[in-house]
Amino acid sequence: MASRQSEALKVLYRSWIDALGANPEMPLDELRRMFEHWGDVTAEPGGVDYLETDAGGVPALWAAPKGCQADRVLLCAHGGGYVTASMYTHRKVYGHFAKAIGCRALIVHYGRAPENPHPGPVDDMVKAYGWLIESGIGPKHIAFTGDSAGGGLAVTTMLRARQRGMPLPAASIPLSPWLDMQATGSTFKSNAEKDVLVSAPIIQTMASTFLGDNGKPDDPLANPLHADLTGLPPLLIQVGADETLLDDSRALAAAARRAGVDVTLEEEPDMQHVYQFLAGVAPEADAAIGRMARWVRPKLGLA
Amino acid sequence: MASRQSEALKVLYRSWIDALGANPEMPLDELRRMFEHWGDVTAEPGGVDYLETDAGGVPALWAAPKGCQADRVLLCAHGGGYVTASMYTHRKVYGHFAKAIGCRALIVHYGRAPENPHPGPVDDMVKAYGWLIESGIGPKHIAFTGDSAGGGLAVTTMLRARQRGMPLPAASIPLSPWLDMQATGSTFKSNAEKDVLVSAPIIQTMASTFLGDNGKPDDPLANPLHADLTGLPPLLIQVGADETLLDDSRALAAAARRAGVDVTLEEEPDMQHVYQFLAGVAPEADAAIGRMARWVRPKLGLA
Repeated sequence: MASRQSEALKVLYRSWIDALGANPEMPLDELRRMFEHWGDVTAEPGGVDYLETDAGGVPALWAAPKGCQADRVLLCAHGGGYVTASMYTHRKVYGHFAKAIGCRALIVHYGRAPENPHPGPVDDMVKAYGWLIESGIGPKHIAFTGDSAGGGLAVTTMLRARQRGMPLPAASIPLSPWLDMQATGSTFKSNAEKDVLVSAPIIQTMASTFLGDNGKPDDPLANPLHADLTGLPPLLIQVGADETLLDDSRALAAAARRAGVDVTLEEEPDMQHVYQFLAGVAPEADAAIGRMARWVRPKLGLA
Repeated sequence: MASRQSEALKVLYRSWIDALGANPEMPLDELRRMFEHWGDVTAEPGGVDYLETDAGGVPALWAAPKGCQADRVLLCAHGGGYVTASMYTHRKVYGHFAKAIGCRALIVHYGRAPENPHPGPVDDMVKAYGWLIESGIGPKHIAFTGDSAGGGLAVTTMLRARQRGMPLPAASIPLSPWLDMQATGSTFKSNAEKDVLVSAPIIQTMASTFLGDNGKPDDPLANPLHADLTGLPPLLIQVGADETLLDDSRALAAAARRAGVDVTLEEEPDMQHVYQFLAGVAPEADAAIGRMARWVRPKLGLA
């Protein structure tokens, strides 16, 4: 059974769905202002410094826990359907990750659609990754993560980097990844009553904005389920079992395993989309972050 | 008439009053968790770095705007009745102040009552002030500010510093200061219907916790309306005209003027307690912060 504390995320998501229901033609700036409160549910990790930087032409936010191993870096792609949210909404949640792992996190403020449609976001992520390597961080000391649309980027950024002849990171941790641009997963129906936030129409609207006029829904750099995943580093996928997007995680795990990738898939009972936002608030999120830290630390060469 | 955007602060305060009404014996940790969301209404200032530090034994948070004049400092005492809130709740609001002024802000995480009753908070503030001076910041390059209970500290910290033979800062900016431990101001009645948050019973409960077993309500270091204010630097007091605490601001302005202090009192029509929390959201807050910056910059030797 879900903890009492985890209700806070449902309350937030319901307030968004209510606001969208009352205003179906909500202007983009208002939608973005609403999503800018995503991180309000997350507790302050504490003991973490936050510094804005220019990561090779892309704005980004360092989350630097006191006493961390600064040469190990978690490269973070925030969620928000490629259209909303920012390095600020995800400051605290990725601050928690960095603190648990004992590394720095670089939260990339990639350009969003419609201003920066596909492949703009993945190219921004690759720029930030290249900047990290150029600044002296070894790729084997870098792990990727991302949630929702950012969970897609946590995979596609590796594919784009490889395409460009760049080395791959040590690991990647997609959280509740959104991959399928057409929302064809069976869990869109089976979890429709349980998932408070994500529905097929929302996904299709976001996909249309993200892909723009020229993007194709089966472009492997937009939906990595169409990509050759051979040779990718170990993947840890965390997803809520109540999510409509659950099938995206299962399909990614299956495709990666078929390609010989080392995959761990964690389906957390009774949890909503990107339940790690409840860091410092609900035990399910803190436990997931603890497992993630234990999984990734040896891959980054941390004891 | 109040802007539409300023409604957000009323919504937040109403939600707190509703929660307190539903749970009059709310435990302290729950009360503090609730107040920890104070800053959720504030927009991210952007372009500001945040670094935790130890300010002479007191935890504190630097807000350092990019390109600011680092040797000019706003020393900030957060509000919350001496019992709740933190350097985290006030991160964004004081980040806005620092950015507007072009200086750094040091937000002091003073110990709160009941764990650290009077004079604990004011002594923590003096420690942080002394640490700033020892670290090489000239007192004439330091201004104090604070909101609500912190507005009291923005005055009492000067009195305690003087008592200890320390130099005074260049200026002080109390915002919606809470001074009178007995809530005797006439605006507790005349604004009772307009002020969404602050009532005499809330003030009296907070005062009792703050003063503890030995504190006296007329101690000049708890309520500076009982102090000799002669020789204090210029004061800028900002307060909402709809506040029950309005009389505290008026009494402070009158007492300081009688003592020969240069005082500016700004009563903002239709505004609630610490309406500057609406920074980046409502025009009233942004205008107030702009006036504050123009007022204090020359006092800090900034052009």
